[in-house]
Amino acid sequence: MITKNDIKQLQKLIGKENVKDSKPHLLAYSYDATRKQYLPEAVVFPKDEKDVRKVLRYCNDKKIPVVPRGAGSGFTGGALPVKGGIVLALEKHMNKILEIDTKNMVAVVQPGVINKTLQKEVEKLGLFYPPDPASQEYSTIGGNVAENAGGMRATKYGITKDYVMALRAVLPNGDLIRAGKKTIKDVAGYNIPGILVGSEGTLAVITEITLKLIAKPKLTKTVMGVFESVKDAMNAVYKSLAGGANPVAMEFLDNLTIQAVEKKFKKGLPTDAGAILISDIDGNVEEEISYQLSLLEKFFKENNVKEFKIAKNNAEAADIWFARRNASQSITIYGEVKINEDVTVPRSELPRYLEEVERISNKYNLKIPCFGHTGDGNVHTNVMVNKDQIETGYKAIEEIFKVTLDLGGTLSGEHGIGLSKASFMKMAFTSEEIELFKAIKKAFDPNNILNPHKMGL
Amino acid sequence: MITKNDIKQLQKLIGKENVKDSKPHLLAYSYDATRKQYLPEAVVFPKDEKDVRKVLRYCNDKKIPVVPRGAGSGFTGGALPVKGGIVLALEKHMNKILEIDTKNMVAVVQPGVINKTLQKEVEKLGLFYPPDPASQEYSTIGGNVAENAGGMRATKYGITKDYVMALRAVLPNGDLIRAGKKTIKDVAGYNIPGILVGSEGTLAVITEITLKLIAKPKLTKTVMGVFESVKDAMNAVYKSLAGGANPVAMEFLDNLTIQAVEKKFKKGLPTDAGAILISDIDGNVEEEISYQLSLLEKFFKENNVKEFKIAKNNAEAADIWFARRNASQSITIYGEVKINEDVTVPRSELPRYLEEVERISNKYNLKIPCFGHTGDGNVHTNVMVNKDQIETGYKAIEEIFKVTLDLGGTLSGEHGIGLSKASFMKMAFTSEEIELFKAIKKAFDPNNILNPHKMGL
Repeated sequence: MITKNDIKQLQKLIGKENVKDSKPHLLAYSYDATRKQYLPEAVVFPKDEKDVRKVLRYCNDKKIPVVPRGAGSGFTGGALPVKGGIVLALEKHMNKILEIDTKNMVAVVQPGVINKTLQKEVEKLGLFYPPDPASQEYSTIGGNVAENAGGMRATKYGITKDYVMALRAVLPNGDLIRAGKKTIKDVAGYNIPGILVGSEGTLAVITEITLKLIAKPKLTKTVMGVFESVKDAMNAVYKSLAGGANPVAMEFLDNLTIQAVEKKFKKGLPTDAGAILISDIDGNVEEEISYQLSLLEKFFKENNVKEFKIAKNNAEAADIWFARRNASQSITIYGEVKINEDVTVPRSELPRYLEEVERISNKYNLKIPCFGHTGDGNVHTNVMVNKDQIETGYKAIEEIFKVTLDLGGTLSGEHGIGLSKASFMKMAFTSEEIELFKAIKKAFDPNNILNPHKMGL
Repeated sequence: MITKNDIKQLQKLIGKENVKDSKPHLLAYSYDATRKQYLPEAVVFPKDEKDVRKVLRYCNDKKIPVVPRGAGSGFTGGALPVKGGIVLALEKHMNKILEIDTKNMVAVVQPGVINKTLQKEVEKLGLFYPPDPASQEYSTIGGNVAENAGGMRATKYGITKDYVMALRAVLPNGDLIRAGKKTIKDVAGYNIPGILVGSEGTLAVITEITLKLIAKPKLTKTVMGVFESVKDAMNAVYKSLAGGANPVAMEFLDNLTIQAVEKKFKKGLPTDAGAILISDIDGNVEEEISYQLSLLEKFFKENNVKEFKIAKNNAEAADIWFARRNASQSITIYGEVKINEDVTVPRSELPRYLEEVERISNKYNLKIPCFGHTGDGNVHTNVMVNKDQIETGYKAIEEIFKVTLDLGGTLSGEHGIGLSKASFMKMAFTSEEIELFKAIKKAFDPNNILNPHKMGL
């Protein structure tokens, strides 16, 4: 329990205006995108790294839980203060792009920078920061690193971890750690960025991030394929990639999702289609684009595509993408509550995975619309339930997790474990593996003050 | 000290023929590429992961040091048993390619597989494993992962860590850890592959590695640029990359290296040149190749290239590469002993770095030929000394390290810390950072049996 004196001491350390315990502040920082609520005891707004160090040192001494928070847009409760303590809100002051170093093609940012803001700034200079989580308009780079966020472009360009070159981070005891360099190669010491990325705020508070940028490809093109069956579409996905195609994105909508978007927006979508694939390709010269298009056309046709459409211009591309971008909000027609999972399987297992989802859907008599990033095997699987069916919904989810793991997949491709999936850790990991996670946690955070009770640890 | 009984017990566990303590065996496993020698007390050849588990469990109980070893081709003593104990030789039995999964574009290998063997096998299937350390003909994938090996293609394709999707590894206590999946995205649990890569055999013994493969580009082209000054060449390097060029490799030879190769091989190299750049580019269509060539030509010319040559065929390409491939053996004309460092600086600092190396060379009156991977800022800096100058050589090295760190670089871009650079860890890291490394080491290896005394830990 935080005392009045703790508040005073923290205010003395970093300024009265930066430590709040009024009800409106506590409420504002008690939610995240899971819509679950846990009240913090104080909200702390560090101005800089020095403030982070002071706050952590204090809280570590007093064993006060600290939950680092970016935009609070996570889907697994990573930013929820389930054990009380303070929320360390990094988006208010620590939100600057410190440097875009065009010579070395890196950006140095504070954790509170919005993903899309960074993308826009580097694109002005002909550079490119590929990771594009669906939350890109509001999620922060710090949160992206903590969750190892993915996105649509992962098929070609990988995910957040593939762009983190260096970090500055503060350990729970207040020690500052600088790890990595502005260089592709750095093999001195343990790979600290490697373990901090995806650690969900449980090991250290990241205060500065150096990100790799690449040259922005000059040309892009959008393609759509309409398939009679999910199986054909999924075969087209993995066979295209294994056949040499290198699409930026390879996105998928199943029949239920197509129907939902059509019902809501009346766009003339083929509501009888088993699945739609949407793909972006990019390159610097027209001939590379043509080459990639020819590969997609070949493998789509070999897998019985009914319609293969290449967008002629930006308007047509936007039109094709409309269905995918509005999938998530449209499927709410199927139930009051959406239990949204982000399981991922090896691409070649996508046909079997979706067969299994259909079986589970029938077994529990629940609609389970699926869409997402099939190029990397990451299918957003949405179990739709009414409020009185939530228990049944979670039974279906458990079965979906089991299928996923049996197919060599993972519980989470993008969202992390956090609170929501913590109870499934024992399904995915052996007790020896969980013991190792605990030992790592203890090495960084012996007093267990940082984002306690997350990831099943 | 290992006793006769320990040998007997280990033989009982994994077979008499797989545990050796005869002098010839101990001698054969007492060296690595540093040419330093430390005798192990036994050499152990596990047949499989089960054997690794049995051996580690035994050694952990008895607190016997275990040094995992691939080909012993490391340059920093990573495979040397400096505290005695056993060498765990993984190249003898655990050297199989277990699977090349073309559907998911991954290879699953045992640690003892030779890098080049894997490259050749996947290329037969139109796939590509880019990491190409200079030791690729004999170094093992296990060693590559343990050292996070780089290579010439890092400029475009990154290094070993960028290809490790999943691992199986055995902890010192014998526990088996499975980490990662055959998927680009997996954010469940801590990123164990991220911390094991580059951990130099100090945290766990890697028993199986799943590597990402990509589609093999259809076309490549080789280019050479001759420059009057190192400064012009280094400006051409980083300006090409910042200007949108995406070369596979961007290699460099300085004047001393050019002279040495010419003296040894009489190839008609321009011995008055300040520097030569050699670059490979690749792509799927001719127009992409032309586009990349036009960028290199533009930026090389803007930086005063004296000669810009595009290889017309494979023979000409091999001819251009000859000088680079024979650089390392040629520079031995400058001294009896080569102190070879693999420091790396941000690309934009290459001109200043090489100026500083020249200053240090003059100060100590030592020849310091430089060549290497300038595309990623990784310059092999070779302090050449006679046997009576070794101390002076190390003074020069220390100064080179200082300059490197001041320029935002790293002590090691490729070779790791091991034994050779252990004493410089305090120059590169704060005591807080070293404490964190020690805490991580302890989390994995509380008895400090795995590759003890390495990395300054």
